Amino acid sequence: MATDQTTADIETQDGPPAAPASGAEVGLVETRHITLFENEPLKTASGDRIGPITVAYETYGELSPERDNAVFLCHALTGDAHAAGRHSLDEKKAGWWHRFVGPGRGIDTDQYYVICANVFGGCQGTTGPGSINPATDEPWGLSFPFLTIGDMVTVHAELVRSLGVDKLLSIVGGSLGGMQLLEWAARYPDMLESGVVLASAAKLAAQGIAFNTVGRRAILADPKFNSGNYYGGEKPQYGLALARMIAHITYLSESSIEQKFGRRLQHSDHFAYDLTKETEFQVESYLHYQGKRFVERFDANSYLYLTRAMDYFDLAHDYGSLTDAFRKTSARFLVASFTTDWLFPTSQSRDLVRALLKAGRDVTFLEFDSPYGHDAFLIPKELPKLASTVGPFLERTLSSVRKTSGRQGQAPVANSI
Amino acid sequence: MATDQTTADIETQDGPPAAPASGAEVGLVETRHITLFENEPLKTASGDRIGPITVAYETYGELSPERDNAVFLCHALTGDAHAAGRHSLDEKKAGWWHRFVGPGRGIDTDQYYVICANVFGGCQGTTGPGSINPATDEPWGLSFPFLTIGDMVTVHAELVRSLGVDKLLSIVGGSLGGMQLLEWAARYPDMLESGVVLASAAKLAAQGIAFNTVGRRAILADPKFNSGNYYGGEKPQYGLALARMIAHITYLSESSIEQKFGRRLQHSDHFAYDLTKETEFQVESYLHYQGKRFVERFDANSYLYLTRAMDYFDLAHDYGSLTDAFRKTSARFLVASFTTDWLFPTSQSRDLVRALLKAGRDVTFLEFDSPYGHDAFLIPKELPKLASTVGPFLERTLSSVRKTSGRQGQAPVANSI
Repeated sequence: MATDQTTADIETQDGPPAAPASGAEVGLVETRHITLFENEPLKTASGDRIGPITVAYETYGELSPERDNAVFLCHALTGDAHAAGRHSLDEKKAGWWHRFVGPGRGIDTDQYYVICANVFGGCQGTTGPGSINPATDEPWGLSFPFLTIGDMVTVHAELVRSLGVDKLLSIVGGSLGGMQLLEWAARYPDMLESGVVLASAAKLAAQGIAFNTVGRRAILADPKFNSGNYYGGEKPQYGLALARMIAHITYLSESSIEQKFGRRLQHSDHFAYDLTKETEFQVESYLHYQGKRFVERFDANSYLYLTRAMDYFDLAHDYGSLTDAFRKTSARFLVASFTTDWLFPTSQSRDLVRALLKAGRDVTFLEFDSPYGHDAFLIPKELPKLASTVGPFLERTLSSVRKTSGRQGQAPVANSI
Repeated sequence: MATDQTTADIETQDGPPAAPASGAEVGLVETRHITLFENEPLKTASGDRIGPITVAYETYGELSPERDNAVFLCHALTGDAHAAGRHSLDEKKAGWWHRFVGPGRGIDTDQYYVICANVFGGCQGTTGPGSINPATDEPWGLSFPFLTIGDMVTVHAELVRSLGVDKLLSIVGGSLGGMQLLEWAARYPDMLESGVVLASAAKLAAQGIAFNTVGRRAILADPKFNSGNYYGGEKPQYGLALARMIAHITYLSESSIEQKFGRRLQHSDHFAYDLTKETEFQVESYLHYQGKRFVERFDANSYLYLTRAMDYFDLAHDYGSLTDAFRKTSARFLVASFTTDWLFPTSQSRDLVRALLKAGRDVTFLEFDSPYGHDAFLIPKELPKLASTVGPFLERTLSSVRKTSGRQGQAPVANSI
């Protein structure tokens, strides 16, 4: 649900120092754009048709001649295609998972061809409600088709095929990203050798829907929202910031928020006794800052569409049962949860693991002991232990693929597509 | 933090059937109003002076000739003086704790003289920001003095004295009500023989401040808020409803919200695929309903003042240490938490109990196993077990008081003040 460099970076600055990332940075990268569904529009779950669709994506590393080393990263709710590296030498912020993705890092770009793309419905390069509707030459706004996680996956699957990859070595995703990869396994069971599900679940629980609905309500009640037609004018920034503030609380654990801020005041040792001071406590100041930063980079309509897609996500409902959803794929899975994640608690990962096992899948399950709540998979300090699990899992998967195809032990061949 | 008949009643209607309440209803009651601080205004913690102050209160049962059987109920964030009985024969809703307060009930009005009053700063009869400022003949709005839980307690203590009671047999409060009684024990240590602290804490944790700040933000960002000057015009109902929706999620447990609503849809078996439908899931419909109902009975400015008072509450900070806060009182305490309450988790009750013990107080601590989260102390189904603990605790306290004063075993004498 969360994803952003913001949290992670602030954690680095204010929180306990992160262990130095092993390996190196990816270096200079660029976001590319591809146009898909030009001839045959996408038919969404709602029955609408839309095309063409532009997808923003980045790749790191080289695809092997056998095209067997591609790893797809599914970003979470507010993420983007820029997972690693920097767009320019002076770009302050590297990609949102740059400490985890790079040469010699958790997802080793010396070994794997890594793809990350902005989701369908998003607002960072891929077609979404803020894009221009070719039929009207105006932004779509709320006339953009309703979309589901299945629709997101269909678009990304088409991207992957267009990059010359029929089968991904792995799909890796946290939170909403984990939902995407589970849907992928059900929808295109032959397109993945493995999946890494972090802090996610096979459906959104009632509490998650509840938090999403109040976030959306904040946007919809903002007078600047104007039924979604705010492009070119003032944006519903108060509503969107508020939605982010609410959501942000759910990304942190009770203990991490207590440890990070406690009851400390922002600017004084003494109470102000002033009701108009909205940022007197540090935790208030932090949340307001998060809200303010968020509206600079995210579109309110996308927030509505993507959170609603999360609400609708329920693999068991869509495929008869959760076990049935995983019967067709032969992929192996790594499922990881975090002890203090109360938005996607471990119990939901366990439900998922049980269904995968029942479907006969090869599953590794871990519950990481972490104080950082739902955001743990993005926190620099937690990445080394994540790397020590995900790294070997990917290696074993690649080794198993090459053993089957008689190429065990062969070093990946550097070769650009 | 929560308190309302709404939750409890809906629980009765939709949730598991409550056990029939033992005992009887209080019957017809009336809210009375008293004017205090007429000659000497209240000096608030912020240094402001305000007076006179009207306090709305109700009483049930009869004060004994010895004036030793008075029990004061501190309501939670959005409660009122109407704790039990009905204002008229056709009043649909009895008081917010009517299943717990009455003849033969958990707080037995045949034995005790029960007082409940609306808090200072509230909006249900006691002077608050919606009251008329005598200096201007206009509603106070945000010019109302900043107030703390200490100020609330000072006002209620004055009410109690004016009712002819020097020492309360007990003060009983949940959530914000629990904070009030803890403050009372520190501020007026000789005014209580005992305290019953339910689902509360000696300070608000960072997560609680975080949820309060986004609730306040929702109100402040509502264009109808108009710097608090909305009386006589349109109210900031969207903002206040949103604040309530956010808070309401925190009053429920993850398991209760899942069990009560799960992913069930409100009006259909099929998804609508319509982004403008805000109440498609039952949990959404419920939260929107809660928000809508809330704005009919609560004032946005009061919500700002009272939540800020909660944020400021920190007994250890105000009295040097938590133990020091309880050194002067000789009251005995019953502290109870609920297993699934994540807003005021058991760990906070344990911290409180440790400090009380260190201060040499007589303390009984219980953690009730309940699926209902923070709201548990208001849920009809949970009241029988609460009654079976609070009832004997009050009886032992009264018995101990009368033993000390040589009137052990004497039946309470019915006598109106």
